[in-house]
Amino acid sequence: MTLAETIGRKLKESSVKVDEYILSILEPRKPEVLYEAARHLIEAGGKRLRPYLVLRSCALVGGDPEQALPYAAALEVLHNFTLVHDDIMDNDDLRRGAPTVHAKWGVPMAIIGGDLLFAKVYEAMIDPAVRGEVPVERAMACIDRVNEATILLCEGQALDSAFPNIDDVSTDDYLFMVGRKTSALFKACAEVGGILGGADPEDVRSLGEFAWNAGIAFQIVDDVLGVTTDESTLGKPVGSDLREGKKTLIVIKALENASDEEGTTLKRVLGVHDFTESDLEAAREVLRSTGGIDFAMATAEEYVRKSEEAISTFPTSTAKKDLLDFVEYFTKRIF
Amino acid sequence: MTLAETIGRKLKESSVKVDEYILSILEPRKPEVLYEAARHLIEAGGKRLRPYLVLRSCALVGGDPEQALPYAAALEVLHNFTLVHDDIMDNDDLRRGAPTVHAKWGVPMAIIGGDLLFAKVYEAMIDPAVRGEVPVERAMACIDRVNEATILLCEGQALDSAFPNIDDVSTDDYLFMVGRKTSALFKACAEVGGILGGADPEDVRSLGEFAWNAGIAFQIVDDVLGVTTDESTLGKPVGSDLREGKKTLIVIKALENASDEEGTTLKRVLGVHDFTESDLEAAREVLRSTGGIDFAMATAEEYVRKSEEAISTFPTSTAKKDLLDFVEYFTKRIF
Repeated sequence: MTLAETIGRKLKESSVKVDEYILSILEPRKPEVLYEAARHLIEAGGKRLRPYLVLRSCALVGGDPEQALPYAAALEVLHNFTLVHDDIMDNDDLRRGAPTVHAKWGVPMAIIGGDLLFAKVYEAMIDPAVRGEVPVERAMACIDRVNEATILLCEGQALDSAFPNIDDVSTDDYLFMVGRKTSALFKACAEVGGILGGADPEDVRSLGEFAWNAGIAFQIVDDVLGVTTDESTLGKPVGSDLREGKKTLIVIKALENASDEEGTTLKRVLGVHDFTESDLEAAREVLRSTGGIDFAMATAEEYVRKSEEAISTFPTSTAKKDLLDFVEYFTKRIF
Repeated sequence: MTLAETIGRKLKESSVKVDEYILSILEPRKPEVLYEAARHLIEAGGKRLRPYLVLRSCALVGGDPEQALPYAAALEVLHNFTLVHDDIMDNDDLRRGAPTVHAKWGVPMAIIGGDLLFAKVYEAMIDPAVRGEVPVERAMACIDRVNEATILLCEGQALDSAFPNIDDVSTDDYLFMVGRKTSALFKACAEVGGILGGADPEDVRSLGEFAWNAGIAFQIVDDVLGVTTDESTLGKPVGSDLREGKKTLIVIKALENASDEEGTTLKRVLGVHDFTESDLEAAREVLRSTGGIDFAMATAEEYVRKSEEAISTFPTSTAKKDLLDFVEYFTKRIF
């Protein structure tokens, strides 16, 4: 079995209970259309990486993943809330191979549907404490971690939206943004798993560092996939990051290294809404020839190493292997 | 001193520390534009009714309003978060006499600015527990109450948006919607004040009932003001509820009682975006002549009575008088 198959199977297994839990907290009430809109993206699919990170982190520190289930669900709901709002902001009509919420129900329902998901995140984290299934202090610590992540997420999304209009975005700017947009939530997932598993603060911190670095690697690889694969694999149009003028690490490095001619080729698609298929092909070639893609992948590998290093002191266990495989997969899934 | 002056002075006094606290938790970070957008509506003004309700409810049960301050701030921030998103959904360009967030910074920044405010609500409620200033159990109970309110708020807003496209909205439908859109948050405010003040569950329940009924009265009077006063008092165009086709209690009753001719006059402005000043005048006259406004005011008074009744068993105190004055004011401010 390949690494991709192993991870795929494990993610699928772990997602069954998570999905059940998510749908149970999104049982329709009045008006049903609101709940339909809120559930739509979750039902459209997704890999459930974040819940997996919660559950395996909990197991790593010797906790009972069953107790972490509501929080694993909460963090997937949080992720989906941000996607619903991001899709409005980015004007994306397609995700996970399905129409986005605003494409299907209009912007107002997508805004309010996202807001409902956000509120449900906190409900899922509070209820186990109210029911006495999780110590109040642990629930509070989890809410605190998730809340910090959400604030960083908002900042990251705002930066990401601003970048297309800024010419001199540096690799450091990119990493600052991605830390907020992607890593903050990964970090919260691992921390929450650790907290619920009863880990000491030092171990919670290590788990957070593991996931923060993993998140950066993940986002970089995601950016790479966004220009290297095809629409059916992505579930959305290839090159939409380019169309939106996103300053990914690939683009930043490519612009830095590009000859005048290569720069012109790139700018024919960057932030341009009606480029042709051959414009896109030429731009993709420039992203390769300038070393943009190689640089991005090397950077991703560097963060994978940092990530692995962060949990190196934990004793060997199935959970540890699962987490390491999970991260390893980020840099492998591309090939 | 008139009741309006007394309430006005008390609200102003209580809002000083609340505003300070709100601005302290919205200290700008990167990107500053996000924080600017998030602070905008709060800085534009507002009566700070919800924090007042938290602080006076806390005082009513013998608690220390100082301890409730972060929660009072949180609930005002929550209110503002909903306004920022509602203004996008309702396409309103003006509020509190200033451009709305999306009118000034665009829809994407208004969505994310609202999301940031939402996250800050929870931060404000968690931090006092993390710092040990409020018992964890009380903080958790507050978060639970506020969270329930937020879910109801989303449902209320979704219903409110749906009503213009539904012909047979009944007074019960209206009250169901307003309970969610306005009362749920009022209720959470009073409950949070009670919980932080150490009230027993029965008193917390009474406070919640007091505020729920007050919220309905408040919203009805707000609807009435929306068609009876002028733009400078409202801070937004007169008749914008009519323009959006909102099914307020006034409109529901007016349509029920209207002659064919009166119905035609109303429908010339209801959900119509380019009506003339004289169309609006004629429609306002119909809202009066059909008894729509009188019916709404009588209903508001009924809810004021229910509200007062809910806290009748609490012993006489300044805080109790403040809460009763506060509610009384809703039905008086119109004249």
